[in-house]
Amino acid sequence: MSEADLLLHIARIASQAPQDPRVEIGPGDDCAVLRTPHRVLVTVDQLIEGRHYDPALTSIDLIARKAMARGISDIAAMAGTPIAAVVSACCRSGFALATELIDAVHRWGREFSCPVVGGDLASHDSGLILSVTVLGSCHQKRGPVARSGARPGDSVWVTGALGGSFKSGRHLTFTPRVAEGVALADLLGNHLSAMIDISDGLGRDAARIARASGVRIEIDANQVPLASGVASWESGARDGEDYELLFTTGAPDSYALKKLGCTRIGEVRAGDGCVLRAPDGTTHDADHMGWDHG
Amino acid sequence: MSEADLLLHIARIASQAPQDPRVEIGPGDDCAVLRTPHRVLVTVDQLIEGRHYDPALTSIDLIARKAMARGISDIAAMAGTPIAAVVSACCRSGFALATELIDAVHRWGREFSCPVVGGDLASHDSGLILSVTVLGSCHQKRGPVARSGARPGDSVWVTGALGGSFKSGRHLTFTPRVAEGVALADLLGNHLSAMIDISDGLGRDAARIARASGVRIEIDANQVPLASGVASWESGARDGEDYELLFTTGAPDSYALKKLGCTRIGEVRAGDGCVLRAPDGTTHDADHMGWDHG
Repeated sequence: MSEADLLLHIARIASQAPQDPRVEIGPGDDCAVLRTPHRVLVTVDQLIEGRHYDPALTSIDLIARKAMARGISDIAAMAGTPIAAVVSACCRSGFALATELIDAVHRWGREFSCPVVGGDLASHDSGLILSVTVLGSCHQKRGPVARSGARPGDSVWVTGALGGSFKSGRHLTFTPRVAEGVALADLLGNHLSAMIDISDGLGRDAARIARASGVRIEIDANQVPLASGVASWESGARDGEDYELLFTTGAPDSYALKKLGCTRIGEVRAGDGCVLRAPDGTTHDADHMGWDHG
Repeated sequence: MSEADLLLHIARIASQAPQDPRVEIGPGDDCAVLRTPHRVLVTVDQLIEGRHYDPALTSIDLIARKAMARGISDIAAMAGTPIAAVVSACCRSGFALATELIDAVHRWGREFSCPVVGGDLASHDSGLILSVTVLGSCHQKRGPVARSGARPGDSVWVTGALGGSFKSGRHLTFTPRVAEGVALADLLGNHLSAMIDISDGLGRDAARIARASGVRIEIDANQVPLASGVASWESGARDGEDYELLFTTGAPDSYALKKLGCTRIGEVRAGDGCVLRAPDGTTHDADHMGWDHG
């Protein structure tokens, strides 16, 4: 299919999609026009063939899903809600499977309530590269939850269960924790002090909160909830691509937090660095526990 | 340089950059946070090694400049003003020249009043691919100028002079026509009926306005202003990457329009299609005059 035919295809599916009140002008002009609040979140992520997925084992549908879900997860990490996305794709020459890819990206955008309002298509001789930019709105009362707000005395929590994301295929099928991020901001308000989504492993991402906040974080590996089939605490702390939310709060423990599926796993203290206490009592530098997925 | 070192480098240059009142949170968190009006423009464009520039002949500085300028030109095409950009880069393995590239992208962002507030870095075995998403604000009074507003009886105009952009190197050094787009909306208001930036050649981009507006456009090749060193009207109509603004207006000709450097080159009529009348009196289908730069 030629590029011109693909652009016509995009115009057709955009015109057939249900009207979204946030989208004033969708795909097909020089820019999309969005109706937004006075503050917007923006994030960009790439999904690269052979690095973030195995092209021999992964359907176009799951590639599109993961590309959209990763960007939306960054919005969730600030307690935001997605507004819309733009997607650029550098495909293999000849645009093989480009129609299927475009359909899947738009479908997952609708599924995640994050319509795709623009894009750019190009081709090269190498594998597929998708770059997804997501815009989001901030939580109305709490505003954006940055990584830098953790304070000594706060406790450290995580949504869901960690580890084995690649082995289980969950890295392709996870649902971004938008509802959980908003529920946490509703519940905790300004006591939700810092948050991040776990993409590079619990250890490394906890170390990022510690560094940004200028505090020390201590995690008790015994408390880390492990995903089904995951046996070792190292896997839970190291594997990466969990896309659960890791957050700190000054609020006391509550039944409401546990009801949201959250588990308390550590403490924020004065100082610096981030350590994990293993079940055998040894401590490990969290910054070096994680996965570099480039 | 490792990815971690590059991220530290980005955090450093972001912290040293002058504070921009539109940027509440810049690079380094899960998302950037921008202060925006109630409507935002958003556009994404890729710049691909070997396709949009020759890596043997083009400095990193000009690569970064062109990547930023192309996106900003799309904002100008709606009569908008850039707010900020996010940039993803897929570099050759080893991140050779990545520091220089990051510095250049941020520098051109500041130069074009479009700060780079976030990004994503990855590497692969092939040439550099940059994807730039630009957010912009709409013209306060006129709102966004789409391609679809041209009406029979309007005249067709262009800023600047066309042709020879590759030969002259202008495709790397052009300045996006943001000031001109805003000045046109100031001057013409709702009589600025449709606009596009000329990226694929005058003929093809004029045909896009005709198609989006459901009208016929007739361009007089004799009137098309040619860039210095360009001899043939075909070159002016076909070469592409001029990044001048092509617009239609229902307002009468005025000295003010000419003072902005604009030239009247054609007419909007009822009907469909877009034709160029050559100096010899023959007519040419404009849709097939242009450059497919993928």
